[in-house]
Amino acid sequence: MPVLRSVRERFAAQRPLAGVRVAVCLHVTAETANLVGALRAGGGEVALCAANPLSTQDEVAAALAGDEVEVHAVRGEDLAAYARHVAAVAAGEPQITVDDGADLITALHAGEPARRERLIGGTEETTTGLLRVRALEAQERLACPVLAVNESQIERAFNDRHGTGQSALDGIVRATGLLLAGQTLVLLGYGATGQGIAQRARGAGAAVVVCEVDPLRALAARMDGFEVMTALAAAERGDVFVTVTGSRDVLRAEHFERMRDGAVLANAGHFDVEIDLSGLRALAGDEGREVLPLVRQFDVAGRKLNLLAAGRVVNLAAGDGHAAAVMDLSFASQALAVEHLVEHAGTLEARVLPVPREVDEAIATLKLSALGVTIDALTAEQQRYLTSWNQRA
Amino acid sequence: MPVLRSVRERFAAQRPLAGVRVAVCLHVTAETANLVGALRAGGGEVALCAANPLSTQDEVAAALAGDEVEVHAVRGEDLAAYARHVAAVAAGEPQITVDDGADLITALHAGEPARRERLIGGTEETTTGLLRVRALEAQERLACPVLAVNESQIERAFNDRHGTGQSALDGIVRATGLLLAGQTLVLLGYGATGQGIAQRARGAGAAVVVCEVDPLRALAARMDGFEVMTALAAAERGDVFVTVTGSRDVLRAEHFERMRDGAVLANAGHFDVEIDLSGLRALAGDEGREVLPLVRQFDVAGRKLNLLAAGRVVNLAAGDGHAAAVMDLSFASQALAVEHLVEHAGTLEARVLPVPREVDEAIATLKLSALGVTIDALTAEQQRYLTSWNQRA
Amino acid sequence: MPVLRSVRERFAAQRPLAGVRVAVCLHVTAETANLVGALRAGGGEVALCAANPLSTQDEVAAALAGDEVEVHAVRGEDLAAYARHVAAVAAGEPQITVDDGADLITALHAGEPARRERLIGGTEETTTGLLRVRALEAQERLACPVLAVNESQIERAFNDRHGTGQSALDGIVRATGLLLAGQTLVLLGYGATGQGIAQRARGAGAAVVVCEVDPLRALAARMDGFEVMTALAAAERGDVFVTVTGSRDVLRAEHFERMRDGAVLANAGHFDVEIDLSGLRALAGDEGREVLPLVRQFDVAGRKLNLLAAGRVVNLAAGDGHAAAVMDLSFASQALAVEHLVEHAGTLEARVLPVPREVDEAIATLKLSALGVTIDALTAEQQRYLTSWNQRA
Amino acid sequence: MPVLRSVRERFAAQRPLAGVRVAVCLHVTAETANLVGALRAGGGEVALCAANPLSTQDEVAAALAGDEVEVHAVRGEDLAAYARHVAAVAAGEPQITVDDGADLITALHAGEPARRERLIGGTEETTTGLLRVRALEAQERLACPVLAVNESQIERAFNDRHGTGQSALDGIVRATGLLLAGQTLVLLGYGATGQGIAQRARGAGAAVVVCEVDPLRALAARMDGFEVMTALAAAERGDVFVTVTGSRDVLRAEHFERMRDGAVLANAGHFDVEIDLSGLRALAGDEGREVLPLVRQFDVAGRKLNLLAAGRVVNLAAGDGHAAAVMDLSFASQALAVEHLVEHAGTLEARVLPVPREVDEAIATLKLSALGVTIDALTAEQQRYLTSWNQRA
Repeated sequence: MPVLRSVRERFAAQRPLAGVRVAVCLHVTAETANLVGALRAGGGEVALCAANPLSTQDEVAAALAGDEVEVHAVRGEDLAAYARHVAAVAAGEPQITVDDGADLITALHAGEPARRERLIGGTEETTTGLLRVRALEAQERLACPVLAVNESQIERAFNDRHGTGQSALDGIVRATGLLLAGQTLVLLGYGATGQGIAQRARGAGAAVVVCEVDPLRALAARMDGFEVMTALAAAERGDVFVTVTGSRDVLRAEHFERMRDGAVLANAGHFDVEIDLSGLRALAGDEGREVLPLVRQFDVAGRKLNLLAAGRVVNLAAGDGHAAAVMDLSFASQALAVEHLVEHAGTLEARVLPVPREVDEAIATLKLSALGVTIDALTAEQQRYLTSWNQRA
Repeated sequence: MPVLRSVRERFAAQRPLAGVRVAVCLHVTAETANLVGALRAGGGEVALCAANPLSTQDEVAAALAGDEVEVHAVRGEDLAAYARHVAAVAAGEPQITVDDGADLITALHAGEPARRERLIGGTEETTTGLLRVRALEAQERLACPVLAVNESQIERAFNDRHGTGQSALDGIVRATGLLLAGQTLVLLGYGATGQGIAQRARGAGAAVVVCEVDPLRALAARMDGFEVMTALAAAERGDVFVTVTGSRDVLRAEHFERMRDGAVLANAGHFDVEIDLSGLRALAGDEGREVLPLVRQFDVAGRKLNLLAAGRVVNLAAGDGHAAAVMDLSFASQALAVEHLVEHAGTLEARVLPVPREVDEAIATLKLSALGVTIDALTAEQQRYLTSWNQRA
Repeated sequence: MPVLRSVRERFAAQRPLAGVRVAVCLHVTAETANLVGALRAGGGEVALCAANPLSTQDEVAAALAGDEVEVHAVRGEDLAAYARHVAAVAAGEPQITVDDGADLITALHAGEPARRERLIGGTEETTTGLLRVRALEAQERLACPVLAVNESQIERAFNDRHGTGQSALDGIVRATGLLLAGQTLVLLGYGATGQGIAQRARGAGAAVVVCEVDPLRALAARMDGFEVMTALAAAERGDVFVTVTGSRDVLRAEHFERMRDGAVLANAGHFDVEIDLSGLRALAGDEGREVLPLVRQFDVAGRKLNLLAAGRVVNLAAGDGHAAAVMDLSFASQALAVEHLVEHAGTLEARVLPVPREVDEAIATLKLSALGVTIDALTAEQQRYLTSWNQRA
Repeated sequence: MPVLRSVRERFAAQRPLAGVRVAVCLHVTAETANLVGALRAGGGEVALCAANPLSTQDEVAAALAGDEVEVHAVRGEDLAAYARHVAAVAAGEPQITVDDGADLITALHAGEPARRERLIGGTEETTTGLLRVRALEAQERLACPVLAVNESQIERAFNDRHGTGQSALDGIVRATGLLLAGQTLVLLGYGATGQGIAQRARGAGAAVVVCEVDPLRALAARMDGFEVMTALAAAERGDVFVTVTGSRDVLRAEHFERMRDGAVLANAGHFDVEIDLSGLRALAGDEGREVLPLVRQFDVAGRKLNLLAAGRVVNLAAGDGHAAAVMDLSFASQALAVEHLVEHAGTLEARVLPVPREVDEAIATLKLSALGVTIDALTAEQQRYLTSWNQRA
């Protein structure tokens, strides 16, 4: 994780978090240990609990605890123990929260007001967590600014376009053994992830068809050279279908009924609602049968439809999920977001805020350096020119 | 211009501009006549003057005048006549202005306050015009909302990425006769236009190198698979250099000195300041010599550098400029922006405002229809799902 | 023409054609003058006549004549004069012929046998010329080896895939002003030229559909990610149709009848027979009307079909034809083919022969050098390994 | 395996192998059972032994034996048993051999001449096997024609360009977890497999650099838009190195010494000789250490180099190897090659022969049909045109 390592080195030199109590509620893994290390190098006093008891790696927890971090996490702890651990961290009256699902910050908001008096702000990594924080905001109960790390420009590019763009196709190939060349891949959704999948599928020799409900995205897909049509029309054309819309029932009975024998159905969206499983089961009249470890086959009117990973997000369920390079940028963004909150303590609105552009730029600069890429800087004269329109007249 | 034709047909049926005085200051060409036709079909009372006296097509002016449009434009009119014509249109106390360079709206702001009392709003098509309007806004003198048509999402995509992306390369090939395959094309600037050029140059078999000052754009280029380096390093590598940054002196003496024999220099940015011509002349010690109609060759330390179109924007100077398909969307956007201003008269802030997303969506929908593309719509259930986060928990 | 220049320099040093009488029948242009210069540098005694009287540039002819070349060519000469000129060159009893259409070598074969007694061999640059030479071969009348320069690997790549690939699309855009992005381009024929057009059209944002009669090429197109279908099905889908098959009536009445309003028809094949013009005129009931200089519009059942350049090869008729880089390799190939014939005089069969791989390799090496590209060489150990299968066991 | 299934259905109807004794020496797997099924459907009397004792699936062997096929294969049999089994099949005096490594046909040639008296011909699937058969041919000892199935056009395209093109990158990503976007991938070798890898790596956002020793391939890579340089220069640039040349020591000490920290080394060529492992060990001074299951890390002058799969072919060693779609075409090619040998019994030379184009065409036609793609056929008039050059004059 070279970018996070750079952040840590600067933090160690500058100590921007000196004396700040940072509470972290993340999956307790080696990557999280690296983030905790960076926050501590910056002077933060870190307490840690698990965002999900099943993902806790006890050896990581032990190592951190031995390293003077307050750790409240045990692999496989039950829900009561999990809640106690979150509560214990909240009881420390943290100034900064780092969340993956918003359990910690919502716990602080559910508890006594005193607990959140010293709160400077928080960061959140997931779509689900942001939905919860935004609900607090809508009720005018949010007590501090929360930076939407997973909506930053760099996250959209790395996590979605490149990270999931690569790993979703990987997952499909690993589950099925398909040769992508020669296949017609129907992509439902042309957001950042969809664009990443489309580009890669084309590079792999697939003919890509895009379905969209947003006319701007549909037009963008068309101008990028992809065929665009309704899902009903595409249902008759596709060999592989990939949903990545954020919506539900994107593929449903009317589509299943039109699909060709052997069609493959995969979901690359966050939730497992994009393919209507109950509709599929109803059409098939049974639960299907497992033909490969991650492939369940349904008979629909004599044609075989192959559902991957039970409709769960295919890059995690059938592939390796996010590459280390993606996690590196996410966690480095978290660290710089924390620094930004501390630096601007008391001046930011108590709302869900975008990650500021300077954080994205700092991450991009560090990543370019990690890639060995050097870029230009504006000359003084260019800076003057760009800030003074009179010169152009 | 199928999209503008669709707008016109709806305008004729709905008359959204009935009785509104619309003053138009554009190049007086057949395309503008189409826009005027659409505005009039919508019920607008249109007056027209030329954004540039040299581009006036007298037969278009005559036809419009015969068609009950108030026209103040004569091809080749001198500056005094030009100013009188703009003033005459301003004197009509227009409610809506449509500008290409902001001459009309600044005339209204320079004149007596009474003239702009009935002003509902304006639209502006160019970067230069927006700079002028924003200067008014910065001085808190802007009297009405102005929609930045050339910054709309659809304009960025069509005009920049696709329109200029295609025509800049066309211009270079026409001026030089180069075979792009096998060339190293150095692209200075990776905004929408730069991205469009990069994609097309790669498709044509060129190896593309990107130079940037913005780390986010530099990283985007790198993740798109292009090599990224400083302009100094690229100077030694390139066969063809294309500037498209919006800045000045992007290529200058230090770069010219490193370039290979036969290098080609082209600018695809709006102004002719991106290649430092005086620096080039100073190095060469002369004005160069014309070796082809649009190619001027300079000797720099025994190597020949070929400057295209005197550093002016190469897609206009050496190619055909914008395709009709691009103009169609620009003018349809103007028409819908005018409708939006009228529909929201009195409710918009007196600032430079982005074109609202619904206008972009309407244009995209019409364009898809013109391309014969049909897309999906959200089901009622999907709409509910997408507006209610509770369903996702 | 850097590659031909390299050849000339080596020829000047090595004099491989010393004293050989070389007769050249090509378009009398500046490029041909360069080839003649290289042949003379190699020691050849060159006589020149025109392959086509219309293309003769008299000043080139004069300059060559002043340069001790025997020139028989006058711009616009009538057919009788043309024949006399070819005959005059043939009368010189050349040892080597260089043809573009086979007029010279067929003249030698039609004349007295004595004329071809000293003939070592010939080269031919065109498909048409090869058809004529192969007819001689089929009749067992061919008196010397003829190298098929236009079928060499390097010619297929440069001339077809890259040269025509680029210039055919250029020609279409120049004639029509189309924005390729968003268009469906139907490509009839997926040989080297078709592949080059497909790649570039995709890079420009077009959706490409391929039609083929050869199952291997059809499958290759499909595995490259393009949609493949019959021309009848494609007729309903395309915005732009490009024929490049070498066959006739590839687009005919049954296709015209299904095309959409506004469809564009272009031919990139050698002969103007690929689009059935008489069928188009019959359907339209007239000769169509010229709507742009190179665009003739036909009404077919209420839909407008736009024929480019009267169905003649669109890259020459509407574009700039071959880039100088392509001519450079063609003429350098001619020069090395001549050297090969001289070097192997008396040892080659009197047949149409492929250009030997070593000539292609020599051209590729010179071209890489002109591009500033350096490549690896096999080590002695690698050469041993590659020639001795026993080491691999 | 839809293509092989089509072949089987036709064979069942036409019985082209009726009464012919076919001896098969392949990996005894489910795919091979399908091939055997097709040969038997065609009327062949099939005997089977294993090309490799370790790959035998005993249940497949049992099922085939139960199906009246003569099977000589036991999983894990020792070398003596293996040889006995091959000999047993050879003793049956087969008329046709189907080999994967040439063990069967060389056994027939090593034995008594009587054994090969009735031999009609053989097919061979591997590079290694062909080397052995060609050695026989060079010694003028080859007794029958052998079709080089693995050199057919369809095999080059599917197996190499598309099959290995996809699976080599899959293997690298699975072994390392790398995000390809933003990486510089150095590809040593630009044959069919290299081209397939290059295209896919570009689609995945990698910057691709090509190294070649063949100037024609180097130039092709350059004209396809890839950077081309020597391996020494590339050594300093690459993040990921992939060898696919067929040669040895393509990456060796002089390259390792220049590589950047973290470089990844993978081989996609058939043999594990392309990366000089002993040179790598010598530089590092040790055997390296396993940092991930398929990644061995070597310290070279303070920089870490990561060798994948011990330099063995990465698509098999770290990925899933050939997709079923690739095996389908290979085995269908085998079946049609056998049919071709029988059909032309006694008329083919006793040499290694290319698979005839009609077999490739038949396979392509069946594959297109399996993909649901329909293509055009020449009209009678077009056929006349294409066979009669006189029409073109």
